Amino acid sequence: MSGKIRIGICGYGNLGRGVESEIVKHNDMELVAMFTRRKALAPASNVPVLHVDSAREWKDKIDVMLLCGGSAKDLPEQAPAFARIFNTVDSFDTHARIPQYLQAVNEAAISGKNVSIVSVGWDPGLFSLMRLYMGAIIPQGQTYTFWGEGVSQGHSDAIRKIDGVTQATQYTIPIESALQRIRNGETPDLTAREKHTRLCYVVAASGASLEKIEREIKEMPNYFSDYDTTVHFISAEEMNAKHSRLPHGGNVIHMGQTGGGNKQQIEFSLKLDSNPEFTSSVLLAYARAAYMLASKGEVGARTVLDVPPVLLSPLGGEGVFGLV
Amino acid sequence: MSGKIRIGICGYGNLGRGVESEIVKHNDMELVAMFTRRKALAPASNVPVLHVDSAREWKDKIDVMLLCGGSAKDLPEQAPAFARIFNTVDSFDTHARIPQYLQAVNEAAISGKNVSIVSVGWDPGLFSLMRLYMGAIIPQGQTYTFWGEGVSQGHSDAIRKIDGVTQATQYTIPIESALQRIRNGETPDLTAREKHTRLCYVVAASGASLEKIEREIKEMPNYFSDYDTTVHFISAEEMNAKHSRLPHGGNVIHMGQTGGGNKQQIEFSLKLDSNPEFTSSVLLAYARAAYMLASKGEVGARTVLDVPPVLLSPLGGEGVFGLV
Repeated sequence: MSGKIRIGICGYGNLGRGVESEIVKHNDMELVAMFTRRKALAPASNVPVLHVDSAREWKDKIDVMLLCGGSAKDLPEQAPAFARIFNTVDSFDTHARIPQYLQAVNEAAISGKNVSIVSVGWDPGLFSLMRLYMGAIIPQGQTYTFWGEGVSQGHSDAIRKIDGVTQATQYTIPIESALQRIRNGETPDLTAREKHTRLCYVVAASGASLEKIEREIKEMPNYFSDYDTTVHFISAEEMNAKHSRLPHGGNVIHMGQTGGGNKQQIEFSLKLDSNPEFTSSVLLAYARAAYMLASKGEVGARTVLDVPPVLLSPLGGEGVFGLV
Repeated sequence: MSGKIRIGICGYGNLGRGVESEIVKHNDMELVAMFTRRKALAPASNVPVLHVDSAREWKDKIDVMLLCGGSAKDLPEQAPAFARIFNTVDSFDTHARIPQYLQAVNEAAISGKNVSIVSVGWDPGLFSLMRLYMGAIIPQGQTYTFWGEGVSQGHSDAIRKIDGVTQATQYTIPIESALQRIRNGETPDLTAREKHTRLCYVVAASGASLEKIEREIKEMPNYFSDYDTTVHFISAEEMNAKHSRLPHGGNVIHMGQTGGGNKQQIEFSLKLDSNPEFTSSVLLAYARAAYMLASKGEVGARTVLDVPPVLLSPLGGEGVFGLV
């Protein structure tokens, strides 16, 4: 194929819109169609927006389909179905279920003779890569992951499900003193509470008991009960003005030793003004890799851990030595 | 092969000694022999130390040979010669010559039906990987590399060649305010002088002109003339007491944009108490990858950019999902 890599988007939420906005920055790719189950919203670009059921007709017109749906309901069903038709890239992020998800997508991709790269993004994704590199290089050490400061959409959603809550934004905040201990060479055992705090902005329905909402948030198992959580009730106006963006970030830090006690510290960090736009950008780089793998005749599902880094670069094998 | 990966070391300088000290931390590897051209120094471990000319006899007893010689004279000759006999990993670090070096080693490795991974370490090596990932993901942006604070062996060597100098240690120091500008979201064009300063500790021969040595250092093209350089003359005792270690480190920072001006910052940093021990650890992880690639029947030379990350991990494909 001598032209550009033809990209399709399935799912037109934050992530799909991010792909739509970022693809123009990749000269070797073009967006050819977007698919959604909802009534089409006005897209930012001039490509057709179609019902997801018509995607199959685009089999020969799309090189890689980016699956931008959610991990809870969309992807477990969509990814195997699409992997039978297209090369795919997705951001499935339910960590504990990645092995079984990978297996299901792998079987579908093999039967469709396609390549699928699953669980692409920054965590899982780039952070997974970093944890692998760090642990493989300095095995005598400990790896820590901190998230934030940023908006956790999962935690915000969990608050929104509480009776009497109309809007919610939850910030995950790393505890700077814990990060500093590791950067200073310690390898402490840290509980969840010692690594992050949670800060919640909530708009309550008129007449709702603020005390009850606050208690329900703070006692929510898994999401909040293991953390020091602060809840602020604010107006809808303040919420829309101050808390509608989706910044995020985080750090993977490995503190290890070589020789007779020489400390070796490796750190990878992200500071993102827009989490969905960054994640979209990672998806696009791996779309290139999926296309390259498929061009070589490979089939099946992969994670970022399996993909040779050079396949992400539009410069290819020749061009990258300037980067070495 | 059901046993451990059998490693040989060629070259018993700082790097060879680093591999010797670090290999015990990798349960799936064992050191079987070391080769040197010099009269063997007493090794720290109990493996045979042999003359480099006898290496060929170990063809069937060594899975991967780590070439720990220097880039100026040793590797351009040794690497192609060894690649005909063994799978090899080396740390060739003359950036501008990597393409032609890769080609020479590739031809030898193909003729020997071996796998060679070249230019492994942290720069070139991990930093190359980071520059590739960062630029591929956020193409609208700029990548900066800072080195230090740490000892540059090349610059220390350059000072030692000056008449009247008996010992020298040169520290490369990143200019913190330049780093901060980028972390704050700027993408400045920085000259060499604006990124790093150079701090030199020198022991002079008795009777030598300190003024002349200092001028020769500061005016040395490529190495010092483009930098703000400070020279301190100290005693041999102070040099040995305070400046005999080899710490190093550095940062790769990418500052880019997505959407309508959202800033996206990616940073990778190393703080290393021992540069040779860290580089050795990277070599060992890639020795595992070379072994895995060879086990799959691949042949030829690769850089870190070509190697699927999962091959670095002793946990293999199954075990890493805990890391995702």
